[in-house]
Amino acid sequence: MLNVALLGAGRIGQVHAESMTATRDSRVVAVADVNREAAEALAARIGAAARSVDEIIADPAIDAVLIATSTDTHSDLITRATQAGKAVLCEKPVDLSLERALTTLAAAEATGRPVMIGFNRRFDPNFAALKAGFDQGRIGKGELLSITSFDPAPPPVEYVRVSGGLFRDMMIHDFDMACWLFGGPPARLTAHGAALVDPAIGEAGDVDTAAVTMVWGDGRIAVIKNSRRAAYGYDQRVEILGEKGLLSARNVLENTVEALTAYGAVAAKPLHFFLERYMRAYQIEWQAFLDAVTQDRPMPVTLREGVAALACAEAATRSLATGTTISLTPGMLG
Amino acid sequence: MLNVALLGAGRIGQVHAESMTATRDSRVVAVADVNREAAEALAARIGAAARSVDEIIADPAIDAVLIATSTDTHSDLITRATQAGKAVLCEKPVDLSLERALTTLAAAEATGRPVMIGFNRRFDPNFAALKAGFDQGRIGKGELLSITSFDPAPPPVEYVRVSGGLFRDMMIHDFDMACWLFGGPPARLTAHGAALVDPAIGEAGDVDTAAVTMVWGDGRIAVIKNSRRAAYGYDQRVEILGEKGLLSARNVLENTVEALTAYGAVAAKPLHFFLERYMRAYQIEWQAFLDAVTQDRPMPVTLREGVAALACAEAATRSLATGTTISLTPGMLG
Amino acid sequence: MLNVALLGAGRIGQVHAESMTATRDSRVVAVADVNREAAEALAARIGAAARSVDEIIADPAIDAVLIATSTDTHSDLITRATQAGKAVLCEKPVDLSLERALTTLAAAEATGRPVMIGFNRRFDPNFAALKAGFDQGRIGKGELLSITSFDPAPPPVEYVRVSGGLFRDMMIHDFDMACWLFGGPPARLTAHGAALVDPAIGEAGDVDTAAVTMVWGDGRIAVIKNSRRAAYGYDQRVEILGEKGLLSARNVLENTVEALTAYGAVAAKPLHFFLERYMRAYQIEWQAFLDAVTQDRPMPVTLREGVAALACAEAATRSLATGTTISLTPGMLG
Amino acid sequence: MLNVALLGAGRIGQVHAESMTATRDSRVVAVADVNREAAEALAARIGAAARSVDEIIADPAIDAVLIATSTDTHSDLITRATQAGKAVLCEKPVDLSLERALTTLAAAEATGRPVMIGFNRRFDPNFAALKAGFDQGRIGKGELLSITSFDPAPPPVEYVRVSGGLFRDMMIHDFDMACWLFGGPPARLTAHGAALVDPAIGEAGDVDTAAVTMVWGDGRIAVIKNSRRAAYGYDQRVEILGEKGLLSARNVLENTVEALTAYGAVAAKPLHFFLERYMRAYQIEWQAFLDAVTQDRPMPVTLREGVAALACAEAATRSLATGTTISLTPGMLG
Repeated sequence: MLNVALLGAGRIGQVHAESMTATRDSRVVAVADVNREAAEALAARIGAAARSVDEIIADPAIDAVLIATSTDTHSDLITRATQAGKAVLCEKPVDLSLERALTTLAAAEATGRPVMIGFNRRFDPNFAALKAGFDQGRIGKGELLSITSFDPAPPPVEYVRVSGGLFRDMMIHDFDMACWLFGGPPARLTAHGAALVDPAIGEAGDVDTAAVTMVWGDGRIAVIKNSRRAAYGYDQRVEILGEKGLLSARNVLENTVEALTAYGAVAAKPLHFFLERYMRAYQIEWQAFLDAVTQDRPMPVTLREGVAALACAEAATRSLATGTTISLTPGMLG
Repeated sequence: MLNVALLGAGRIGQVHAESMTATRDSRVVAVADVNREAAEALAARIGAAARSVDEIIADPAIDAVLIATSTDTHSDLITRATQAGKAVLCEKPVDLSLERALTTLAAAEATGRPVMIGFNRRFDPNFAALKAGFDQGRIGKGELLSITSFDPAPPPVEYVRVSGGLFRDMMIHDFDMACWLFGGPPARLTAHGAALVDPAIGEAGDVDTAAVTMVWGDGRIAVIKNSRRAAYGYDQRVEILGEKGLLSARNVLENTVEALTAYGAVAAKPLHFFLERYMRAYQIEWQAFLDAVTQDRPMPVTLREGVAALACAEAATRSLATGTTISLTPGMLG
Repeated sequence: MLNVALLGAGRIGQVHAESMTATRDSRVVAVADVNREAAEALAARIGAAARSVDEIIADPAIDAVLIATSTDTHSDLITRATQAGKAVLCEKPVDLSLERALTTLAAAEATGRPVMIGFNRRFDPNFAALKAGFDQGRIGKGELLSITSFDPAPPPVEYVRVSGGLFRDMMIHDFDMACWLFGGPPARLTAHGAALVDPAIGEAGDVDTAAVTMVWGDGRIAVIKNSRRAAYGYDQRVEILGEKGLLSARNVLENTVEALTAYGAVAAKPLHFFLERYMRAYQIEWQAFLDAVTQDRPMPVTLREGVAALACAEAATRSLATGTTISLTPGMLG
Repeated sequence: MLNVALLGAGRIGQVHAESMTATRDSRVVAVADVNREAAEALAARIGAAARSVDEIIADPAIDAVLIATSTDTHSDLITRATQAGKAVLCEKPVDLSLERALTTLAAAEATGRPVMIGFNRRFDPNFAALKAGFDQGRIGKGELLSITSFDPAPPPVEYVRVSGGLFRDMMIHDFDMACWLFGGPPARLTAHGAALVDPAIGEAGDVDTAAVTMVWGDGRIAVIKNSRRAAYGYDQRVEILGEKGLLSARNVLENTVEALTAYGAVAAKPLHFFLERYMRAYQIEWQAFLDAVTQDRPMPVTLREGVAALACAEAATRSLATGTTISLTPGMLG
């Protein structure tokens, strides 16, 4: 039984609180948030204490923290928590600044404490089955990877402005998926994108529709497509072409009902958004973190991998800005 | 190259004419129809002569006839054509009267000439693949067979009156499918049905919705469901549960397009009716007949099998009328 | 917050215990079992007390009981608990004896206390969506209902001997599904069946493969197929043909991964058995019971409906034994 | 009834001969081929005369020619045939040299004679239905187009050497598909590729696996993926994300049979290659050409569109060679 604290009581913090309290392997003893009331409300609901971040980090009785605060605080909290000897599970992305993330990586690795980055999709049972089948050689060596990842609706432009942009905020999941499936970061990538959904997103300097092509040193290719809007819900598909065939993970639908009428065959839509689609993944993610910490095994998603995904996002941002292909240098990967 | 004649220039005769003229293995030399104008029009279109049935049967240069006339003439024409030494492909059903069909069977078998009954579904590539997979043991021994067979819309009640009823006119295809897949006729069957689609069909003494359960001597079961109306088109599905799994053939859709919108995922309907669904099957059927005749091999569907399907229809008719289970006696099977 | 007791700490009792402790709307205060150790172990795990059935029924502080004991105790416990003023959720079937179930129905209704029967499938989100779509008129009036319900593997023959037979133990779920979807019990039904999977089941006087056809007074038909063995897992499908189309609920698959290779397109199997498929349904069922009790609303599944399903099972048993169609009389329905 | 000649009696010429002889709207009067024996054999089979190209072009009784000769002769034959007043249907690609194709375009347009390029996929009923649905506004304005196009197995490297490379030989179909769906050629594109399937293809200076991203002036994006090898057959899929949803065309499978066993659910593979998948499309293509010629309507695929697809291939070739994004200039489009 690990004593854990939750840093961040916002939407994603509350999602994690569900998982953290559902297992018998961890006990949430403290919740912190810059909004004290939010921390107190959540703490009350789950039987924990609302405390400050400083108190939590200083408390030797707390074994691990889950960082679900705003992105600009991640680096600092990872560094402080690991230096205080705690295990850390931090939401993605590590940081909006690759430079700062690299500094954090060095500092955290120096402590030897385990840090995991919360790329929830790796724990989705469907993508996990895809990965397992791929690693078992069902289609032989991978050659051409495709990731389709569309959100149901764009966020408010206020959010877009502080998000770090589509590549750091949204496609970072897909960068991690590609690096995970293909065993490490690509050699180079090229990004294309436009604001087709909401002109205000374009005015804020971001895109809402994008395609990135990643190329590995041995020629393998991955294509990622993102859109901030899919009228039918959350579209989350992956497929890999390999020497022996195609392995794919399709969407999870709302239900299995089909109506076949004069208008055609109408089936259900994909689950609406990440809360519906990945609730189970969040639970598995938390358990995987606990298991790794208590059994002293490697983190299922390392901080270094979190930095690699950020490096891809950084490269994509530069590629889009310059209209050129960007190579990922060793210096970008830590 | 076989010289063949087509008896019947109505809708189904015209369908067969397409297949008969598309192959290089047969030459249609004559067409007959009680409606002389219809015979002449079709004959002109396909480069054949319009002749009477008597002339055709008397002409030793004609090797084979395809009987696509009205059902009440089938028995007589099969008997006369075989006695004249011709090979025969006759549309289903053999007859509306089981007694008369049994007489025809005896007469035709006495001639030793080949007679095939046109159960087109056996030649559909999908059902043929199902049968092949089943016979290859993909699911081991069969236990529970399900046949779903719905027409898109009911025929005019005038047609229903002369059709011999749903069991002899429509479900006869499914009786043959069940006997074909399970290797012979069942020991007994029970029928249920009602006129739910069109009350006029009920007033004409027939049903438009029916379910029949067939049981073989070793306990295997088949369930057939029929409806004269499926608002979405022609529903033609078969599935077999066996000791090692389930083997099924799904519908063939109009196209592979899917629209995924806020209203759900809309795919295409099944092909509308038998002309769309089984056009290819009719071609394969005709070629299979030609191949069997010219290579002196057994008919792909024997007259005896046609009689067995009719015996099932007869039993179902009696079962529905009496509310009891009816056994198929040897005397019903010829 | 309702104080509830769990009667029965076996497999299905433990399943219910998960749901009963996951909600904030009920507090499990007591667990009883004829096996005292089992009761104590489960009680300890969920923070309840192990008590005797007598104590629980006598305790006015307990508002409701969930009966998950062996079937032969259901009637007695329903009667005693309702007479003690408690709300009851009882596992299916009500009883193996229709006669005794009718007595229980009369006794329970006399108390005015709410009794719900645990037909879990009604609470499966897929079947619930099917029912909602049907009730909303997506396919108009229903005409022909098909239920496919196969277990992955047959139970031990020892279980079969005390189960009451396939119709009372297994198909009872499908009888309830049919009555639920078509708005009440049928007028009559016919059963066919055999022991095709395990001869020992036949020697024990039961069947393992069965098909039942139900007919309503207005001619509507339902066909139920059951098998104790599906090599691929738990097959749970429903489809309704109506005047405007076909509404169906397909299986829930283990995952959405597909491997497309030289051997074909391989997708995942259905979820293996009822624990995998219906875990969520059990949770929703319990919550539905709590909501109905606390808000004083009608039970989502009444005891009377549980008796109707049992009457269908009784009729099917007689039909199979006699080879005739059996009518459901008012006396069988209470 | 048009008198037509077939130039080229090789594999694709023979495919076209099937369609040309199946319709009553054209009569194939002549066949030419550099291999005189091949021309004679095919001519004999379809009841035409084997003649030289010069004779055919000089014969005023021949209304139209179908050019199915080797690619290096296309430009010359288009020019000569149109100057001789004939209507032309020419196989893709127009030429391997964009410069020469532009000269041909100018020459052919000067004659005012109709020229159609044989992009067969536009006539596939599935892609035609996709296009119709898109044009009808089922998903509103298109934003992100994805084309997956994999051949079952790579061609011999000898073929690769003279093919003009994957972009001109294979992806040219997809370039045309993208331009057709999005209403004209893109503003720029970026190509990535490698020889992952067969190193000999790499040694011959070509790639066998490629991804191209096309961007239109208004920001719309198309991603095309090609591979010379899909172990499971011919993979031909298109999907368009639009403001109101996703419209897709899936593969056409060999049959509708599914085997559900302990190993999973095994469905059929896609139709093996273009002959299986597009045989019907070739027939529709030829009829569309005939209809347009006889009714004096615009060609369904213009020579100008054929040049645009070639310009995309040229740009992709340059992009791959230089590692940069290439803009399509007006000079490249004629």
